[in-house]
Amino acid sequence: MTRNELYLNILRKRSFLCVGLDPDPDKMPASLNGDLLRFNKAIIDATADYAIAFKPNLAFYEAQGPVGYKAFEETVRYIREHYPDQFIIADAKRGDIGNTSKAYARSFFEALDVDALTVAPYMGEDSITPFLGYEGKWVIVLALTSNKGSLDFQMIRDSEGTPLYEHVLRKTQQWGSPDNMMFVAGATRGEMLQDVRRLVPDHFLLVPGVGAQGGSLAEVAQYAMNAQCGIIVNSSRGIIHASNGDDFAEAARLKASAMQTEMSQLLG
Amino acid sequence: MTRNELYLNILRKRSFLCVGLDPDPDKMPASLNGDLLRFNKAIIDATADYAIAFKPNLAFYEAQGPVGYKAFEETVRYIREHYPDQFIIADAKRGDIGNTSKAYARSFFEALDVDALTVAPYMGEDSITPFLGYEGKWVIVLALTSNKGSLDFQMIRDSEGTPLYEHVLRKTQQWGSPDNMMFVAGATRGEMLQDVRRLVPDHFLLVPGVGAQGGSLAEVAQYAMNAQCGIIVNSSRGIIHASNGDDFAEAARLKASAMQTEMSQLLG
Repeated sequence: MTRNELYLNILRKRSFLCVGLDPDPDKMPASLNGDLLRFNKAIIDATADYAIAFKPNLAFYEAQGPVGYKAFEETVRYIREHYPDQFIIADAKRGDIGNTSKAYARSFFEALDVDALTVAPYMGEDSITPFLGYEGKWVIVLALTSNKGSLDFQMIRDSEGTPLYEHVLRKTQQWGSPDNMMFVAGATRGEMLQDVRRLVPDHFLLVPGVGAQGGSLAEVAQYAMNAQCGIIVNSSRGIIHASNGDDFAEAARLKASAMQTEMSQLLG
Repeated sequence: MTRNELYLNILRKRSFLCVGLDPDPDKMPASLNGDLLRFNKAIIDATADYAIAFKPNLAFYEAQGPVGYKAFEETVRYIREHYPDQFIIADAKRGDIGNTSKAYARSFFEALDVDALTVAPYMGEDSITPFLGYEGKWVIVLALTSNKGSLDFQMIRDSEGTPLYEHVLRKTQQWGSPDNMMFVAGATRGEMLQDVRRLVPDHFLLVPGVGAQGGSLAEVAQYAMNAQCGIIVNSSRGIIHASNGDDFAEAARLKASAMQTEMSQLLG
């Protein structure tokens, strides 16, 4: 999906919501017997009207072994088939040496056909550039994450006061463009989002941490939106596990709908 | 496996060799039809006498989808069953928020029973500590990698001249101990290994980059060995793809044997 197609989807649906498909079997209704795919299909059907993207986090699937991995693949196929306008992000946080990253790129972009993959920047250029050669595909670089531990290394400052996450934003921009690269920037970091936006005025930002992790949607929009929206806001637990009863899909629909209503206002 | 058990294995086999199981179908003999498990079993049988550890890199398996993931699992089971004294490292370079890391820990340490898992430090404490609660299990933190891109961020220095990889070594040490934490330190970084050893005198280092990537075994031993050996040196392509013909296992055996001979001398 191109940047313009993504933007048109946002305008059409008046939403920049990404639903994080991170299913926790302990929070799923007992009637599903831990069936990730059945759970996901119900969530996707219930929320697709209000979202422009879905983001399965691989960890939740890999934790179940090959059965889980298959559920991940089937989830991607289900979205591709039934909701072809959805932007699919494989939240894999990969990052390895060049020939390994090439293998990942083939796996996610060719075999699976997701739109975007999250990557960790620690290993540098050859861990990221192999993902950039695919037309209409995206790499989403972890810059400023929303978890507590993000302060441990991402905020380390060099002799000129520049924190590590700024180095990541500055350097990775030289490898990709606003048409094939996005950045993760957590909602819980408040005004730092302003700093991120200043450094990457045109890139889309994937913003986790709204909802369960405490970030506010209005604040994110205020600090990080640009003229072409420029933000995709993710909510996982807050939507998919809004209820752990048999009404989980309806509860998810209500949460997603409420976020879309707020987003529509913020889009002005 | 405890640190002492690992050290006793090293003394008994006079080897600190880890064989990297990163099978590339394009470099496997045609007669195997890309069967990763058959390839791995032959490599493991041929090299186990000379090695104390095996390290499958998940990317090479995930690139094949569920079939590949199954081959990874079967590989781990095969080593566990036939070579119970081998230290098994899942080279997954994971790193995610706390609840996700917990899912990974369960998957790798409980369901699969590997000894160690590599993790990327960018997301900080809550991405690493969930792996530390398992007796006899290890987390191996990326500190100084051996690839070209490692210079992009790992060498960024703070106002006191301390590079990022030193911050990683210093801070993560506070979370784990030499009994449940190791560090990746690349052989291609020469004298920097000395600096790493000074900062973490007692921790085991996992050293990639000897062989195909150009690092020297003698140099690694000189800079990084400690009184209890303290290093596990990995070689992947240099051993497993020493030949792409039907003699691949015998060629791997010869390469592993040659490395073990050199290691025996370095152990003194």
